Amino acid sequence: MSRRSRRNPVWEVRASTLARNTRNLIREIIENLDVQPNPDKQLIALSVGDPTTFGNLNPPDQVLQAVRESIEWHTSRGYGPAKGHIEARQAVAEYSAHQGHVTAEDVVLCSGCSHAIELAVSVLADSGQNVLVPRPGFMIYKTLAEGLGIDIKYYNLLSDQQWRVDLDDLENQIDDDTAAIIVINPSNPCGSVYSREHLQDILEVASRNRLPIIADEIYEHFVFSDHEFISMSALSKDVPILTCSGLTKRFLVPGWRMGWIVIHDRNNIFGKEVRKGLNNLATRILGPSTLIQRALPTILKNTPQSFFDEVVLFIENQAKLAYKELVLAPGLRPIMPQGAMYMMIEIKTNKFPEFKNELQFVERLMSEQSVFCLPGQCFEFPNYMRIVLTVPEEILREACRRIIIFCQEHVVSREKILEIDEN
Amino acid sequence: MSRRSRRNPVWEVRASTLARNTRNLIREIIENLDVQPNPDKQLIALSVGDPTTFGNLNPPDQVLQAVRESIEWHTSRGYGPAKGHIEARQAVAEYSAHQGHVTAEDVVLCSGCSHAIELAVSVLADSGQNVLVPRPGFMIYKTLAEGLGIDIKYYNLLSDQQWRVDLDDLENQIDDDTAAIIVINPSNPCGSVYSREHLQDILEVASRNRLPIIADEIYEHFVFSDHEFISMSALSKDVPILTCSGLTKRFLVPGWRMGWIVIHDRNNIFGKEVRKGLNNLATRILGPSTLIQRALPTILKNTPQSFFDEVVLFIENQAKLAYKELVLAPGLRPIMPQGAMYMMIEIKTNKFPEFKNELQFVERLMSEQSVFCLPGQCFEFPNYMRIVLTVPEEILREACRRIIIFCQEHVVSREKILEIDEN
Ligand SMILES: Cc1ncc(COP(=O)(O)O)c(C=O)c1O
Ligand SMILES: Cc1ncc(COP(=O)(O)O)c(C=O)c1O
Repeated sequence: MSRRSRRNPVWEVRASTLARNTRNLIREIIENLDVQPNPDKQLIALSVGDPTTFGNLNPPDQVLQAVRESIEWHTSRGYGPAKGHIEARQAVAEYSAHQGHVTAEDVVLCSGCSHAIELAVSVLADSGQNVLVPRPGFMIYKTLAEGLGIDIKYYNLLSDQQWRVDLDDLENQIDDDTAAIIVINPSNPCGSVYSREHLQDILEVASRNRLPIIADEIYEHFVFSDHEFISMSALSKDVPILTCSGLTKRFLVPGWRMGWIVIHDRNNIFGKEVRKGLNNLATRILGPSTLIQRALPTILKNTPQSFFDEVVLFIENQAKLAYKELVLAPGLRPIMPQGAMYMMIEIKTNKFPEFKNELQFVERLMSEQSVFCLPGQCFEFPNYMRIVLTVPEEILREACRRIIIFCQEHVVSREKILEIDEN
Repeated sequence: MSRRSRRNPVWEVRASTLARNTRNLIREIIENLDVQPNPDKQLIALSVGDPTTFGNLNPPDQVLQAVRESIEWHTSRGYGPAKGHIEARQAVAEYSAHQGHVTAEDVVLCSGCSHAIELAVSVLADSGQNVLVPRPGFMIYKTLAEGLGIDIKYYNLLSDQQWRVDLDDLENQIDDDTAAIIVINPSNPCGSVYSREHLQDILEVASRNRLPIIADEIYEHFVFSDHEFISMSALSKDVPILTCSGLTKRFLVPGWRMGWIVIHDRNNIFGKEVRKGLNNLATRILGPSTLIQRALPTILKNTPQSFFDEVVLFIENQAKLAYKELVLAPGLRPIMPQGAMYMMIEIKTNKFPEFKNELQFVERLMSEQSVFCLPGQCFEFPNYMRIVLTVPEEILREACRRIIIFCQEHVVSREKILEIDEN
């Protein structure tokens, strides 16, 4: 082996392609925004999907108690198996019985749902292949896939049909390099919840094209009255599915980083390779903290249904409140969600000719009213903004009030629009 | 975009290259071993580098107390920044002052040291490049790199010179595609601890070749009497270094998955790109549990030095015990470690002609004496085996006793060897 002869005698160390291409769309957009709040008004951030930020939503004591106990066990300190402790995986299997037949063998514990998604995408797709992602959609898929050279292709959700999947568009996006379809249900950012029939329609597209599905169900059971949450996998007859979920949202502990993949594969299509591949990938960082793993059986069994019901009811009431208010904001069209913790709001940009696009709208909303909403571009969906519904009621009410004032101050009348259009 | 026409009308879903190439050498070797213990003897596993397995080594109450308190804070449940909470990074910076000038900005919290290594390797090396890894050495580097298409090249450690780096060999391995040199000090599996002079020699090779170093110092401060631990980065004048460490070994909490990278870059060679790249990579799974992050400042500040001293003294005594015993085992050559928690033992395979290689030696040691040691092949170093020193004293004593019996039963005399050699 020959000794290295560096052409360049000066130091230069570059970052890898993976590192350079692992980009976080939301962060990049926000960093480029001019988002200084109005110093005279208290900032209200409706931007971060963290239900714990304001301190009004807390995990029930049963969840904390489970971890308090776990600390005292010396088995909560040692290494666990790469896929996670069997007792914890067994508990997830029982907790996930609504998804279909699940055993501990079908469960891989991960460091948060993001990690579950990372494993799911990277076990199914190779560099050069693509995965199909909903638009609008949560953009961690882009962050995770593009670094690995996996392309993202979008399929459209229909904003005027409760964000149903445009099935034709979905099928049209599929090509020979497509490795998986990603379905987020209930949806971030839309708050949509799909019906049994619609899920079956999506499954049919997947089945016809022999494509596995990654079902991002981190908002499972987060559905408002008159809606039903149905897990994709409960309906699948043949399509193999990797369902990603975790404690993050439902148990109000995003920081604990406890997520999981449930493998659904009735016809053994994933075979040994995908299961083994997931196991291989899990060995890279050895899964989530065993402190939480040891608490997981108790967490999943002891948390009372009343806790979940209360949280969902609170969010539903917040959604109704925000909808009732914002429907009065001139130039906005709020879309009532059916679940999750978000609401999408259309900004009729032609009514705000002052602003070039929705980015400028949210910038100015921030600088004038100190209310910060995420621009639709963060979800590849311009002309919309997303608000988070988990903030305390009074704060949400105040935010809506300020949004309405802002719109009133900047909207132009129909006559004015016609005038502008003429010039 | 044209509709997909699958050539293959049957379902087939394969695992990605990354998933297939993420292979765990240790696991694969162990899975292929025939390792059934002797049913008449209690199994003694000297194989797993988990100091908590036997329950004789426990974190001090200060560490547990810090987490007990953290549970009660609602800030220990929300999302943290991708690199970790500033208070936790600040605490790591102070804890790492022996490494040189470190600020919170230089710290990236990770989900265990494995994750730190994953980020360090993947930020510096691209697919097609290589990183240099010590042989014998801990093989997570292989697991992590090869999945990403990064090649591993080995440089030799000298078994008869306290596992010093063969500097010529190191320099000879460097080629135009080399992206980084990895140095594990104190070493797993060797237990070697490098002197200031030797570290300087290694730095010189790196400097001359303009190569950054990844310093795996997860066993920092784990050194026996008459040895001194010196952090690589404390000596570097120009070579940029990513130091990987964590709570895992020193605080006896491997399952908690708390690790970190400290960036050392006096001359700003990593520039913005590598720092930004690390940040990008950290956003993929959002770091370690905030429950532990919030406890980290207290853990790092309140753990008494006496705790560390006791653990190291215990391991040193175990090393002396094992050495004293095993030096009497015919056909073995134990190598006294200077730190960490392991001992390497040469198996003079020509004295055990019954066994084809050290794999068969450890298999038979297991099936006859129910003692399980890791074969050297797990560290790319045949003809050796590694034992773990953290087991309780009585168990280690019994293990040594059995190893000696085993050797006595299987070793052949010098005369016999000569005889065999002649045939
Ligand atoms: C749709 C969706 N999937 C996954 C995640 C990531 O969850 P985690 O925080 O468990 O990584 C989020 C977080 O907001 C999400 O909205
Ligand atoms: C040298 C070395 N580096 C890194 C690690 C991984 O540490 P962690 O368990 O924090 O991922 C180990 C674990 O045994 C090790 O021996």
